[in-house]
Amino acid sequence: MATLEFFYDFVSPYSYLASTRVEAVAARAGATVRWRPFVLGGVFKATGNRAQFEIPAKARHMLTDLDRWARRLGVPLRFPTDFPFSPILSLRAALAAEAAGVLVPCTHAVYRARWADGRDIADPAVLTAVLSEAGLDGAALVAAAPNHKEALMKQTQEAIDRGAFGAPLFFVGTEMFVGNDRLDFVEEALRASHPG
Amino acid sequence: MATLEFFYDFVSPYSYLASTRVEAVAARAGATVRWRPFVLGGVFKATGNRAQFEIPAKARHMLTDLDRWARRLGVPLRFPTDFPFSPILSLRAALAAEAAGVLVPCTHAVYRARWADGRDIADPAVLTAVLSEAGLDGAALVAAAPNHKEALMKQTQEAIDRGAFGAPLFFVGTEMFVGNDRLDFVEEALRASHPG
Repeated sequence: MATLEFFYDFVSPYSYLASTRVEAVAARAGATVRWRPFVLGGVFKATGNRAQFEIPAKARHMLTDLDRWARRLGVPLRFPTDFPFSPILSLRAALAAEAAGVLVPCTHAVYRARWADGRDIADPAVLTAVLSEAGLDGAALVAAAPNHKEALMKQTQEAIDRGAFGAPLFFVGTEMFVGNDRLDFVEEALRASHPG
Repeated sequence: MATLEFFYDFVSPYSYLASTRVEAVAARAGATVRWRPFVLGGVFKATGNRAQFEIPAKARHMLTDLDRWARRLGVPLRFPTDFPFSPILSLRAALAAEAAGVLVPCTHAVYRARWADGRDIADPAVLTAVLSEAGLDGAALVAAAPNHKEALMKQTQEAIDRGAFGAPLFFVGTEMFVGNDRLDFVEEALRASHPG
C-alpha cells in the first residue's frame, strides 16, 4: 500500500488546511498517511526561506487566500491575533502522542483548537485541556513533551536533508510536494505508485 | 462581461504556464482577458519579496514543480540555462505591440520562444526575429520598445499599489489572486461576478 508522508507544523495554516483532507486524499488513492510533525522555523533557518507573513503584501493577501481555501474545503479557520506563536511544546507533545499511539487524534485536536477555536496551544495548561477534551491524557502528554525534543529536531533535519523549504510538505516515496495546493498532484502520484 | 486582468512578466515561468490557459479560463466563464505586462523585479524590490530561485532548496524543487505543471497542461517547457535573464526589452516591446493592437500574439510568441524554444529574447536581434516569425513587424516593435519605458513602470506601480507581491497576478474586479495555481479560484470568481 502506498504511503503519503505528511510533514506539518502547528504554526502553519496551510498545514492545518492540509490536515483536514490528507486522510481523504490517501483513502481515495488506496494509500495510508504517515503523520510527521516537524519545525517549520528550523526549515526556514536552514534554507534561508522566509515565512509569508514576513513580507507585508504577502501577509495581507495570505489572509484572503486562506479564507478562500477554508470556504472551498468547508472548514472553520480563524487567523490568530497572537501570530506567530511558538508551536514547539505542541509539536513535542505530538511526538509524545505518537509514542502513545494517539498521534492522529492529537494532531486534529491541536489544529482545531488553534486554527478553528483560537486557543493558545503554546500555554501548557491550555494544551493539556485541549488534549484532555479530545479524550487523550493531556497531562501525561504535556509532561512527556520535553522527552521528545531530540526526536523532533531529528525529524526536522530529515525533512531538510530531503529538500524541505516550507510546509505542508508531502512525500510519495522520494517524490516531494510542497503546499496544500499540491494535494491534487500528491493524489495523482499515490495512484501512480501502486499498480492497478 | 467580466474581465480577467492578467499581470505577467516574461521572466516568470509560472506566468508562462498561466499564459497558455487564461484565454480558456476566461472563455469558460464568459469573460475576456486584459493582458498586462509588468516588471516582476520591480514588484520584488518594492515589497521585499524574493524570487524562488534565490533560495537554493526552493529553486531545485521549482524545476520539478514546473515540469509537473507542464505535463499536466500539455505544454512544452524548457528551463533556460541563462536564467535569470532581463525581460525588460521584451516587456517594453509588448507594450509597443499593445499600441499596435497585437499584444496577444506578441505575448504568446515571446513566451513560446523563451520557455518552449529556449531562445534569448533579451537579444534585440532574436526578439525581432521571434516577433517577425509570428507575423508581426518585429523591427518596428523592437524599435518602438524604448518609447514604452514609462508606461511599463506605471503599469508595474499600479500592480504594486493594488497589492502585488508576485506573478502571475490576476484581478477580477478588486479581488486579487496570485499564482498559476489559483486559476481555478479565478474562474470561480469570474463566474460569480456576472449574474446568470
